[in-house]
Formats: sequence, C-alpha cells, structure tokens
Amino acid sequence: MTATRQETDSMGAIAVASDRYWGAQTQRSVGNFPIGVTRFRWQRPVIRALGVLKKAAAQANAELGELAAEVAQWVVQAADEVIDGQLDEHFPLVVFQTGSGTQSNMNANEVISNRGIELAGGTLGSKTPVHPNDHVNRGQSSNDTFPTAMHIAVVEEIHRRLLPAIATLRGTLADKSAAYAHIVKTGRTHLQDATPVTLGQEIGAWVAQLDFNLHGVKTALPGLYDLAIGGTAVGTGLNAHPQFGDTAASHIAELTGHPFRAAPDKFFALSAHDALVQTSAALRTLAGGLMKLANDVRWLASGPRCGIGELRIPENEPGSSIMPGKVNPTQCEALTMVCVQVFGNDAAVAFAGSQGNFQLNVYKPVMVHNVLESIELLSDAMLAFNDHCAVGIEPDLDVIAANLDKNLMLVTALNRHIGYDKAAQIAKKAHHEGLTLKQSALALGHLTEAQFDEWVVPIDMTHP
Amino acid sequence: MTATRQETDSMGAIAVASDRYWGAQTQRSVGNFPIGVTRFRWQRPVIRALGVLKKAAAQANAELGELAAEVAQWVVQAADEVIDGQLDEHFPLVVFQTGSGTQSNMNANEVISNRGIELAGGTLGSKTPVHPNDHVNRGQSSNDTFPTAMHIAVVEEIHRRLLPAIATLRGTLADKSAAYAHIVKTGRTHLQDATPVTLGQEIGAWVAQLDFNLHGVKTALPGLYDLAIGGTAVGTGLNAHPQFGDTAASHIAELTGHPFRAAPDKFFALSAHDALVQTSAALRTLAGGLMKLANDVRWLASGPRCGIGELRIPENEPGSSIMPGKVNPTQCEALTMVCVQVFGNDAAVAFAGSQGNFQLNVYKPVMVHNVLESIELLSDAMLAFNDHCAVGIEPDLDVIAANLDKNLMLVTALNRHIGYDKAAQIAKKAHHEGLTLKQSALALGHLTEAQFDEWVVPIDMTHP
Amino acid sequence: MTATRQETDSMGAIAVASDRYWGAQTQRSVGNFPIGVTRFRWQRPVIRALGVLKKAAAQANAELGELAAEVAQWVVQAADEVIDGQLDEHFPLVVFQTGSGTQSNMNANEVISNRGIELAGGTLGSKTPVHPNDHVNRGQSSNDTFPTAMHIAVVEEIHRRLLPAIATLRGTLADKSAAYAHIVKTGRTHLQDATPVTLGQEIGAWVAQLDFNLHGVKTALPGLYDLAIGGTAVGTGLNAHPQFGDTAASHIAELTGHPFRAAPDKFFALSAHDALVQTSAALRTLAGGLMKLANDVRWLASGPRCGIGELRIPENEPGSSIMPGKVNPTQCEALTMVCVQVFGNDAAVAFAGSQGNFQLNVYKPVMVHNVLESIELLSDAMLAFNDHCAVGIEPDLDVIAANLDKNLMLVTALNRHIGYDKAAQIAKKAHHEGLTLKQSALALGHLTEAQFDEWVVPIDMTHP
Amino acid sequence: MTATRQETDSMGAIAVASDRYWGAQTQRSVGNFPIGVTRFRWQRPVIRALGVLKKAAAQANAELGELAAEVAQWVVQAADEVIDGQLDEHFPLVVFQTGSGTQSNMNANEVISNRGIELAGGTLGSKTPVHPNDHVNRGQSSNDTFPTAMHIAVVEEIHRRLLPAIATLRGTLADKSAAYAHIVKTGRTHLQDATPVTLGQEIGAWVAQLDFNLHGVKTALPGLYDLAIGGTAVGTGLNAHPQFGDTAASHIAELTGHPFRAAPDKFFALSAHDALVQTSAALRTLAGGLMKLANDVRWLASGPRCGIGELRIPENEPGSSIMPGKVNPTQCEALTMVCVQVFGNDAAVAFAGSQGNFQLNVYKPVMVHNVLESIELLSDAMLAFNDHCAVGIEPDLDVIAANLDKNLMLVTALNRHIGYDKAAQIAKKAHHEGLTLKQSALALGHLTEAQFDEWVVPIDMTHP
Repeated sequence: MTATRQETDSMGAIAVASDRYWGAQTQRSVGNFPIGVTRFRWQRPVIRALGVLKKAAAQANAELGELAAEVAQWVVQAADEVIDGQLDEHFPLVVFQTGSGTQSNMNANEVISNRGIELAGGTLGSKTPVHPNDHVNRGQSSNDTFPTAMHIAVVEEIHRRLLPAIATLRGTLADKSAAYAHIVKTGRTHLQDATPVTLGQEIGAWVAQLDFNLHGVKTALPGLYDLAIGGTAVGTGLNAHPQFGDTAASHIAELTGHPFRAAPDKFFALSAHDALVQTSAALRTLAGGLMKLANDVRWLASGPRCGIGELRIPENEPGSSIMPGKVNPTQCEALTMVCVQVFGNDAAVAFAGSQGNFQLNVYKPVMVHNVLESIELLSDAMLAFNDHCAVGIEPDLDVIAANLDKNLMLVTALNRHIGYDKAAQIAKKAHHEGLTLKQSALALGHLTEAQFDEWVVPIDMTHP
Repeated sequence: MTATRQETDSMGAIAVASDRYWGAQTQRSVGNFPIGVTRFRWQRPVIRALGVLKKAAAQANAELGELAAEVAQWVVQAADEVIDGQLDEHFPLVVFQTGSGTQSNMNANEVISNRGIELAGGTLGSKTPVHPNDHVNRGQSSNDTFPTAMHIAVVEEIHRRLLPAIATLRGTLADKSAAYAHIVKTGRTHLQDATPVTLGQEIGAWVAQLDFNLHGVKTALPGLYDLAIGGTAVGTGLNAHPQFGDTAASHIAELTGHPFRAAPDKFFALSAHDALVQTSAALRTLAGGLMKLANDVRWLASGPRCGIGELRIPENEPGSSIMPGKVNPTQCEALTMVCVQVFGNDAAVAFAGSQGNFQLNVYKPVMVHNVLESIELLSDAMLAFNDHCAVGIEPDLDVIAANLDKNLMLVTALNRHIGYDKAAQIAKKAHHEGLTLKQSALALGHLTEAQFDEWVVPIDMTHP
Repeated sequence: MTATRQETDSMGAIAVASDRYWGAQTQRSVGNFPIGVTRFRWQRPVIRALGVLKKAAAQANAELGELAAEVAQWVVQAADEVIDGQLDEHFPLVVFQTGSGTQSNMNANEVISNRGIELAGGTLGSKTPVHPNDHVNRGQSSNDTFPTAMHIAVVEEIHRRLLPAIATLRGTLADKSAAYAHIVKTGRTHLQDATPVTLGQEIGAWVAQLDFNLHGVKTALPGLYDLAIGGTAVGTGLNAHPQFGDTAASHIAELTGHPFRAAPDKFFALSAHDALVQTSAALRTLAGGLMKLANDVRWLASGPRCGIGELRIPENEPGSSIMPGKVNPTQCEALTMVCVQVFGNDAAVAFAGSQGNFQLNVYKPVMVHNVLESIELLSDAMLAFNDHCAVGIEPDLDVIAANLDKNLMLVTALNRHIGYDKAAQIAKKAHHEGLTLKQSALALGHLTEAQFDEWVVPIDMTHP
Repeated sequence: MTATRQETDSMGAIAVASDRYWGAQTQRSVGNFPIGVTRFRWQRPVIRALGVLKKAAAQANAELGELAAEVAQWVVQAADEVIDGQLDEHFPLVVFQTGSGTQSNMNANEVISNRGIELAGGTLGSKTPVHPNDHVNRGQSSNDTFPTAMHIAVVEEIHRRLLPAIATLRGTLADKSAAYAHIVKTGRTHLQDATPVTLGQEIGAWVAQLDFNLHGVKTALPGLYDLAIGGTAVGTGLNAHPQFGDTAASHIAELTGHPFRAAPDKFFALSAHDALVQTSAALRTLAGGLMKLANDVRWLASGPRCGIGELRIPENEPGSSIMPGKVNPTQCEALTMVCVQVFGNDAAVAFAGSQGNFQLNVYKPVMVHNVLESIELLSDAMLAFNDHCAVGIEPDLDVIAANLDKNLMLVTALNRHIGYDKAAQIAKKAHHEGLTLKQSALALGHLTEAQFDEWVVPIDMTHP
C-alpha cells in the first residue's frame, strides 16, 4: 500500500501519494477524468510552459511588490525544476479535463507550492510558506494562465522542432534541385506526358512549396506572441496588479527568447484562440504540400519496371523477400499518413475554436493538444523522410532518357521550323505506329536526321 | 413599376408583386436574407417535398375532421401544382434564412393559400377561404414540417437519381470485369510491381466497392423514413389532432411510394437530424470509393508512353492541339472534384448536426441543402463518368503484355520448383542486368526454356 | 551497454537487444521511423488482434496440412502470450510506418517465431524450428493480415468498451427520463421560450438519440466482420491454401466470439477500408449527439443565478475558491472536447480511406489508429460523464416552476377558450408591462382567475 | 429549332447555336459535363477575371511584338465586353469539368475570338482574323491562365465584397462597444456567472476578433498576388516570350488596381495552390469567430423571460403568431449556417489542394469555386447580420441590472476588506438561502449597509 498524506482544497481533504507533490485539486481530477490516460497526459512542452509561466509570474509579482522576495525565490526555484523536466511525473493530468485547463493550472500551482515548501523546509500540504493560490497563482486565473502556457508551448515547439525540420528537408531538396539542374526529363500534366522540364525544376517546385509554407508558419507566430496573461478570470484583470500582465510577459519573453507580450485585448485572448486556429491551418497547408511532395516521389520511383521509375529511393527495409528492386516507398507512406493526421487534427482545432461562449472558450486543452501533436508528427516525419529517403533520391538516368526519348510532346519543338500541320502529322504517325518521333519524321520526309537532331533539343524546351 | 398588392402578417402589411402568390412572411424573408441569392434558392426537390407534405397534411386533417372537405380540396389542388413544379417561381427564398426553415414553410403555406383562394374565386391576400396558418398549416409547425420535407426530398432524390446512377456505373463496370476476366496483368501494391491479377479482378474490386457503398446508402434510408410530422412546435404535438402525425405520414408514404412513418420520438426528430448526418456520411464513403476508382483509371491510362498506359479511355475533347494520344482523363478529374466537394459538404452537415439546442436544431436548411447537393453532384458525375469514360475503357493489350512480361514478380512462380534461393538469384540478376526473367533464368542455367514456359504462367498466379 | 544478438533478414544482419524477441525487420523499423514514439506505439487492441490472427492462422494451416502439428503448437502457444498481453513490450513499433502495416505484421511474426523457438528449446534468431515467414506468416501477406487485425481490434473494442459505455449512459438517462416524466417545464426553440415539455420528454430525446447512434454503430459491424485474410499480397490468394481464408476466419470467429468471415472480394478488402470509414462515421454521429446532450446539460445547469439554472449537476471539484454554487460543467467540457477530437479523427480516417491505389490502400495504420482512439475516448468520456455528472443530474424544481410560471407561451392554452385575438392581447400586455399572464388576463377582464387556473394547465400542453 | 453554325477544333466540327459566341471546345464541354448545371456555372467574378487576363495578355503580346496591333485591339475590345459582363451568357460551362480549367480558358478564347472576328467584320467560326489559340491564347496555356484567373477573381472579390463587409460590421460593433462602455453586467465563464465586465468590453472582444480575422485575410493576399502567368503548360514558359509573364502581370495589376506580379516559381504556381488554401483557412477562422459572435448574441438575447435576456435584437419577422416577445434570432441562425458552410467549403479546398501531381494540380476549378462561394456567403451574411441585427442590438438594462444584482460573484470585492473566509461565508449563505449578497452580509453582521454599498461597486471590478 502506498503511503499517503492529506491534501485539502475548498471541498475538503483527500489522500495523495506521499511521493507526489501534487495537491487536492490534481488528485480530484485524476479521479474524475479517467479518459485516455495511457496516451493523453500532458507532455514536456506544456509542462515546461507552465513552469516558464509560473516563474515569470513570480518574478513579476516580486518586482511589483505583490510577493515577498523569499516566497518568490522558492517559487522560482521550484518552477525551474518544472522547466527542466525534473518534476514531470508530478503532472498526471490528461487533455480531457476542464475545458479551461483549470486543473492543469492548479497542478502546476500545487506542485510548485509543495516543492517550494519542501525547499523552505516546510510540511507538504501545509500551503505554508508557499501557497498554491495566494502565491504561485497570484494575480492569475486559470483562464489567463492556461492560454498563456498554450502559446508558450506552441511557439517553443515551432522554433525548437518544426522550423529546423523544414529547413533540413528544404536544404536537402535545394541541393538536389541544384545538382540535377541539367537533367532533362518528361514533364507531366493530367498524369499525361507533357513538354520537358529539368529534374532541378521539378524538385525546385517542391522547394518553393516548402518555402511558401515555412513562410506561412512564420506568419502565424505574431498571433501566438500575444499572451492572455494579465486578464485573470474574465479579461478584466481583476485582482492582478495593473502592470502584472506586461511585466510577466516580458519575463516570459526573456526566459524563452521569443518576443511575447501581453495581448492588447484580454477579453479576446480568453474567449477565442484564433491564433492557434491559424497556426493549425498553416500546419495543414504544410501537410498538404508534403503530401504532394511525397506522392510525387513515390510515383516517380514507382516500378521498378511497370511504373514511372525515373527516381531511385533508398531501400531501408526488405520490401519483399522474393523481389529485389521492389523498394516500397515507406517513408512516403509514413509521411502521408502524418499528413492526413494533421488534416484531422486541424479539423478538431478549428471546430473547437468556433465553440467559445461569452468570456471563455472551454476547448483550450484539446486545441493545444492537437496543435502540438501536429508539430511533433510533422517534425519527426520530415526528418525521417529527409534522412531515410530525400537524401538518397537519385535519378535513374536510363529511364529518364528513355522516357524523354519516346515522349511525343517533343514534337512541339518542330512547330516553328516545319509548321504545326507537318509536326502534328509526325506525332500522329509516331503514336499510331509505335515509332519514335525521329523515325516518324524521317519516314515522312519532312526533315533530315541532322535537322531533327538540331531542332529537337529537349533542354531548349525547358525555358521560355 | 411592378404592380403590387398588400399582404399582411402579425407585423402588419407589406407590398408583394401582384403576379406572385407568396405572402407577407415570404416577402419579409426576401428582404431580410439577401444571402447567396443567385445560387442558393431552393430547388425542385425541396419545393416538391413541401407540396407533398402540405397535400398529405390537408388529406389527413380532412379525414380527422380538422378541415372542411372543400377547403382541403383547394389545398390539395394547389399543393398538386406545387408538386408538379408549376409554381416554382413562387418560391424565392434561400437556404440561409431562419434555421428552422420557418420562412420556407410559410412560403409554402402562403402560396398554397393564395392559389387555393384563386381556385375558390377569392381575393389574393384575403386569407379567405384558405388561410395559410389555420388551414394550410393546420396541426403543423415549421419545426415539424420542415424536417419532414427534408426527409421527403432526400429520400426521393436518392431513389430518383442516386441509386440509378450507381446502378448504371456498377453495371458498366461489372460488364467490363466479366469481359476482361482473362486478361492477366501486373498487380501493384505500394505503387510497385507485384504479382499478377486479371483485369477482371482489378475492375471487380471497383464493383465490390460500389456494391458496398450502394448498401451503405440504402442502410441510411430507414432513418430517413421516420418523419417529424405530428410533433408541432416542440415535439409534444400540441394543437395537432392525436392521429395527425401517423395519418399524414401514411399519406406521404402513399404519395411518394416510400415507407415513411411518423417518428416514434418527435422530440429527437426536431432537435437532431442524425439520419441526415448518417446519410451524408454514406455519401462521403461513396465519394471516397469513387475517388479511388477515378484515380485508378487515370493512373492506368497515364502516358501514353511515359506512364502506365495499360488502359485506354475515350478521347472526348482535344487534350492538346499538337499532341495526338494525349488523352486527358477529364471525366476522372470532374468526378474527383465532385468527390472533394462531397467531403466538404459532409463536413458542413456533420458540424451543423452537432449544434442543436434543447428542442430544436436550427441548422436545418444548411443540412438538407448540402445533402441534396451531394446527391445531385454524385449522380450527375457518375453518369457523366459512365457515359463518357467507363463505357469506353479498353485494355491496351500490348502494354499490358509488355508490362507483365518484364514484371520481375513472376519469379514467385518458380519458388516451388527450384527453391527460393535460386529464384531470388534469377530475379536479382534480371534486375541488375536489365534482363527478362527468362533470359536471366536461362543464363544461370537453373532451368530450361521449356520448363520456364511451363512453370511461369501468370494466369495461374491469379488465384490460390 | 545492452547485450545484443544478431538478427537477420534479406538485407543482412542487425543487432537486437538480447532481452527482446523481435527480429531484424522490427529493429530496422525502430530505426527508420522515429515518429511520435512517445505516444504512437501500438497498444493492446492491435497487439492482441495480431496474436489472435497468428493463432488462428497456425490452427488453419495445421488443419489444412500446411504446417506440422508441432510447429503449429509452438506458434499457438506464443500467440496466446501475445493475446494475453505478456509480450507487449516486444512490440515497439509506431503507427507511422509502412502504410501496409508490414512491419507490425513482421513484428508479430518475429516475436512469435523467437518465443516459439524458445519454447522449443532453440536459439533466438535462428528461425528454427519456427520461421517467422515460412511458419508464422504461412499463407499470409502483410497486405491481408494487417487489415484482418484492424477489423479484429475494432470489433473487439466496440464490443468490449463502446457498446457497454453507451448502454450505461443510456440506462442512466432513461431512468432520469422516467423519474422526471411529470415535471413540466419551459420548452425552448431558437433558444427562445416555447410551449412546455416535461423534463422526461426532454431527457427522453437524449435517450432516443443515443439509441439511434447505438443502432448506427451496430449497423457498421457487419462490414467489419468481413476479413481480408486469404487474399495474401494482392487479393488473389497466391501461395495460400485455397481454404485458408475461410478456415482462418472461422478460427478467428471462435477465438473472439464474433461472427467474422473471409471477405467475399479480397481485392476490395485490401485496396479499400470503407467498413472502417463507415464505422468512423458512426462514431462521429454519436459524437455529434453527445455534443448536443452535453451542451443541453450545461446550458440547463447554467447560472446558478444569471443563467437558465433548471438542472443541478454534481460538484466534483472546486469551481472557484470564492464562489459557492459556481459548479463548472467540467464533465460536459471533457465530453465535448472528446467529441471534437472524434470529428477530427474521423476526418483523417475518411481522407485516408480515399487514397488507395490499385491493389492496396497504404494508409492502413493511421486509419485503425484513429478509429481505435475514437472508440477509447468516447467510451472513457461517456463513462466519466455518466459517473460524475449524469447520475447526479437533478431538477431545480423552484427554478423550473418559476420559469414555467412566467413563460408567456402558456397563453397558447387560452386560444380555444377566448380566441386568438384576446389571447394575444393578454400576452402582449404581459410582455410589455412585465406582468404574469394571469395578472394580465385578469387586468384585461377576459376571464376569471378560476377560469385561468382551469384552462392554463401546462401539463395538458405536453401532449397532442 | 435553334439555328446553328459549325465550329471546329482538332477533333472536327460541331454545331453551335448561332446566337452564341463560343466555339467547338466549349460546345463539347457542355455535352460532356452535365454536372450540377443549374447551380455550378461560373459566375461574374471568374468570367470577369478571364476577361481581365485575356486583355492583359493581348496588351503584353502587342507590346512584346508577339501580336499585331490590330488583332490585339480586337481582343482587347472583346475582352472589355467580357470584363463588363456583356457576354456572361456566352459562358455556359460548369465547375466540374477538366481539372485544369482548360475548357473555361478555351471558352474565353473562343468567345473573344468570335466577338473579335465580329468586330472586325469577319465570319464567326472562321478563326480569322482573331484566332482563339494563336491570338487570344498566345503565349499562354490553360495551365497558367486558369490559376491566374483564379487569383484575380479571389483578390477582386475579397477587396470588393469581403473587406467592406467586415469593416461595416466591425464599425457597427465598435460603435456599440463605445456606446455601452459603462454598462456593467455579469461576466460568464463555463456558462456560469462570473465577475462583472462592461457590455463595452464584451462587445469589444467581438471587435478584436474581427480585427484579428480581418488581418488574417489581409495576410493571405500577398500569396494571391503571385500569378502563374508566363509558365505556360508545365511552368517552363515554353512558347511564351521571355518577358510575357512579367508584362502581362503588370497589365493585370494596372487593370485591377492590385499589386499582382508574375510568380517567382512558375512550377509551384501550376502544381499547387497553397495561397488559395491559406486564403480559405483565413475565411474559416473568420467564420469561426463569427460563429462565436452570433452564438453570444443569440444567447444574450435568449428568453425573453426564461433565458439570459440581457440583449434585445430587432424583430424582423413574426417569430410566432401568438407569442409577442418571441424574437427568434434569425440573423444569427443564417450567419451560423453560413459559417458551417464555410467550414465545409474549406475542407474541400484543403483536400483538393493536397492532390496535385507532378507539374499540375487538377482540382483548380473546385478550389476557386469554394473560395469564391465562401467569400460571397460571408460577405452577404455579415451585411445582413449587420443591417438586420447588429445595428439594432440594445441592452435590456433592467435584466442586466437584475442579473448583476443577484450575481454572487460580486462577493469577490469584499475579500480585501473582510477577508476571504467571511466573504465566502456571505456567499454561501446567500446561495443556500436564496438571499442577495447584501441581505446575507447584513444578516451575518460582517459589515454595514453603507460599507457594502461602498465596497461592492461592480464597475470597479471591471479593470485591474
């Protein structure tokens, strides 16, 4: 049997395991919300963000004379441990709880209080000398702290994981685009053979799309830099020092290195989370672009003999025990599965974002959960795709040449020399009789072989 | 200047164009909801359903002694004209109105009232001898009539348009599957060459998927046969004759030929429309299946030379003025665009379905609108795809044979004769040296040409 | 340093931790797919389903003479341990891997092989006497086994968790509906006061909606009972005994107690997963209904003084330290957050379901993951909502009576006695002067107090 | 019988009605795509955009010496008529056609050609002196013109309709926020009574949300200013003058007054439409905000007696014939229905956006259709909501005061004077005995009436 101590809140006492710092409200939430407990506990980014927030709040309150320096110091010290990940096992709560995230805010308050008390040599559960509400939560409400932590977590994860992952993949593809700038190949529109492009141009379009979506994610950041802190329960800032929001936000900016500020309209900051919705949308557009990229790669690598087969991708695992050359595009598959997950997550975020009422949106936890999951999955999948697929993409020059050679669209180059009608005649004959363009052209006698070789130069068709 | 007459409701009088049967409430709605007026007016299915409903209600009320026979007759006669489409121009309202559809219910009441008055020789707008509320709407409320009309319209359109369209396309594909049952070709998994299938099997999978989704749509019908009629304003049936719901429903069943009945729980029938949500979901699954079908067709027809090229599809329009053989898969493109539209429509329906409060869901018009649009688009697109693509699908036997011939996966047939290791050796050599399997096998000396021809028989690989 | 052994596959040797049963392909997947590893490892339902499948396959192969009895017995014994959960730590792979689930199929093959070898006294990694491919995977391919396991897992979880959770909540609400059948209260349409309903009727609509959606989930089950097993790599059943699919399916049916069978069209069973899409849609409709229920509960319990306040719900945690009576509807909030998550998951499933090509849909893992997550979250959240909210719902009779008393819609009862015009006059005067209906009626002298009391009887307004 | 003339394309001749300017390709499309013809024909914005594009292209080609001045002039003149809407009936094609929009591009080419021929005194169908391909489509391909027209249409509609509509509603609400800045009322979180806010603050949050989303839409514009023009068939610009893209784009900028330019990467501009996806996402976030706004309004106006009832909204139509004061929030209902439609449209756009292959995304028409529909519906609905609801929103001062007076959360103001414990005691007694706070406070003797009146000043609780 686990040893316990009594923790109390306004509803009375409740037993908590002795080796846990959390208090009564956290314990009640554990009992009341047994929903998805194996997979939906908050993870590092949110716990860390709560630590950052509580540290900054204590610093701000101390500066503004709202908290004794000694108490503030204990809070800061305990919050540092939360930030560093030393107390993660003291955060047992799940996403599906109160829609304001109240219980996770109280979880942070309780853990920091008890750890602070311990640092001060006090008795766990005594709320002295570090009180979870009066000190750790001073000038705050769940309604402004939780959305503040949401923004901190999302901004940090975007900077720490997503942007580097995009940059890595972008760099790999940009190098490939440059390296293959002079490989001319069949273009394809409507899945049908079209006039030629270079492989560098084809890959360059993927790079341009990544750049567009990198920009899209960055464009969402300013909305996330606006923090609800200072709004307290309904946005008025009741019970907070008038400078608390601005001061706390500037400490958060300092602690994280990102330009956070107190939101100009706190009522909006509590009652809606459109900055998260827009962030989620930017992730969805990125996912849409990655889906196109991964589909292009696997189609171009399809075959090896009865598909397009113009690209070779790394063979990372046995595709089939009997079939050499059957390189299943598994990284493309994992990446596109992540993409559809991100589309789903985004649908949840946008739905949740529309459901606020009056002074509060009570879908906060599910919103931040999905945005963070999308960031994590996209980052992981882009890196896996980069390391195990993109870096190893190579052209199959023979297939590319053969395809280009038989591509009837090259006839377009003859228009200016022999006119549209004769060119069409050449193409039609080649198509119906299974000839090459050159064979058809020579058979029809519209031009000499030397002229054909001079005029039909695919590389010249890859620019205006 | 258009001539007008005065029409009145509880808010007073308002001018209506003399050549229109509608009354004051319709006129107010025209003024209050100028939203999407060029494309979002109700169309035939909903107008017809309102006519059916009003006719059945009059018949029921007459039977139950709630309406004088003569008045009922005028209502029935006018309602018949609504049913037949003679009065469509008297239904000017749009989807985006009151969320209960009240104004469209009143539109029907007003038009039938005035046309009934006209038939009776009375004065338009006088409400005598056919009163829009007391007679046409007797025993009814918008809250039960509009959802009743929704179900009627959707059931009729499913039977009239969707099921026949599925059956047509299914029939075409089943014929193709039978006709091509013995054409052996390369199977493909992960977009990679795999062991052979017959073209009949490949097309048969499309047929099986259509059958599954046909069944899915039919499974949604029973929920739609339950009608809200008899519930009046909040589900209690206040002000309706106790037998009104059942009697009216049986008249609706008779008029339409579908087994409609009064819903067992009227409160549920007004406050949620889950039968529509499930119907929309069945349409979405159908759309997902059609997307797979259309994608398969266009990939198999890709090329003509640098793609897969195993199928030929009809050339319906110039793909490119210079490029014979560039047959763009335009019907596939139109169909898949319809599919993504249906996915979007379904998202709107499901969202709307979740937003009811207390005794009423006030997203009724947008729900039925999207379901009907999906039915229409899917029906139209399946027929266009059938007529202009599916019926003309033909195998390119040369390409199929060539692909099959070079497909290294055929080596699997040798396992039982020469063992896995030697078979793998043959496949590897063929892959790396660009040989056919037979060339490789003979070069390695593992078997004779006669043995190869006897053992490697692709058709034998297409069943257990 | 962890001790390792060498495991081999067709790509060569790779080191695996000595205390793990998995082999080379699992190990490669661990390295190649570091995507969401903290939260996206397969959990019990899928691992158990793989165990059920492998046991049934071994039994079928033994019966059909394809596997020696002794080898089959080792496979069965090891598979039983997989089924029972004893080997969960030997399944390290995540959702985002090969889109066919190949690596998880191989994970099961490898673990059962090595554990079977151990039971037989052999050497781990030796593949003797129990070979992962030749014995454990005999007559199978990832392409038919993984979708088979998907269906097994989803069917079992629906029966084990979802249906009981719905039944529990449904029972609680049905009891409440019966218990409060005679409490008359204000109905509400358009959020506006309407004619009265009983609280029993209001709650009964929630019950009817749960019943509808319970039926919807059950309707999806037959599609899930059709298993891909017997199709092997592309649906043809190549390399499987002709009776293998049917025999294995009947063993699966016996092991699970559910009426599984081999799917009639294996090509469809591999290339699309519409049964999962329809199941997901049924979960979404259920979620939409639960959203309406939870919203109704929290609005009816809103206040305590400045909202509707007709219901009281349990106070499970401190809503506010200062505010007694501020009972935040936290269970409603958790439940509605689950609902939006289910909407998002369903969007991912339907998207993935549309993206198959040719003989294979390679979004299998993400599809089953989302369906299982939705089942888990809905089940957990319904039970939490039931236990911590629904069972404790109680009417606030004073508020209900006061609201009903002042509800001007009661005037409707007077229509038949004093006529519409006088009734409207009473209502208007009451509205504009802030009177009760009775006060207004008596002031106007249209009827006596005795008449009012006799005629305005709300309970009589709750049925036709 | 309609008189016809013969029109020709590379497939041969086809009859076209004599009174129509379109040619053979348009006519074929009419026959091949009978999908949603009553509602899905292109409307003004796309037709106008095609006119702008063709005019600019002719100007550019003339400038660059690619088109004779006289021919260019006929094209410009005909294009001007397209721009002005004089030729709308000559654009019969629907959204669901070729996925590149080829047929609508050809429709524009054919109409301008024939109208140009007519202006030049030539024979319709003769293609002389204005050829649809060689002159009107010179230096262009459907693959770059249609996405160019998409961007032009969307940008123009955003500027012409959406931004003004947002501004109008924003202005109305900002005025209300200012006008009601001093009305103190009950705040609400979790639907529960909370500490006070001013009505100005509450409305101000709506204004802030509109501002955020106005900014969001504007942020999407730069992506739309990048035009595909100059890329021709695959992005290479083959067959176009090297300066054609830049020159045409600058003419488009001049004609429209918006800063369009040729996209830096044409391959990306043809193969993906992420700028449209992001635009759609911005519209969706706006819709989510409008949903919250409309829900707040209708809940605050709920009642009139058994709801919250703090706001009065205009009565635009009879809510119920018997019930004065039953003002159904119909504008809120229409607006929220538009919002769910926009969510659905956006889902379609994002799905379509992810489905490009190689050098072309063939979901162009369905993407631009949905974005334009969302713009139209949001604009119309915001204006209707503004004109028929927002401008008439008025506080019900009596209800607001009564609610505030009984709101137990006011007790928070006493904390600093008498301490938390006594304040809680007062609140609890008031809650359980149904007293006002003042009654409870005086009964407990914790303070005098004068002190209560001095300390409990709601307006002081609405700021830090």
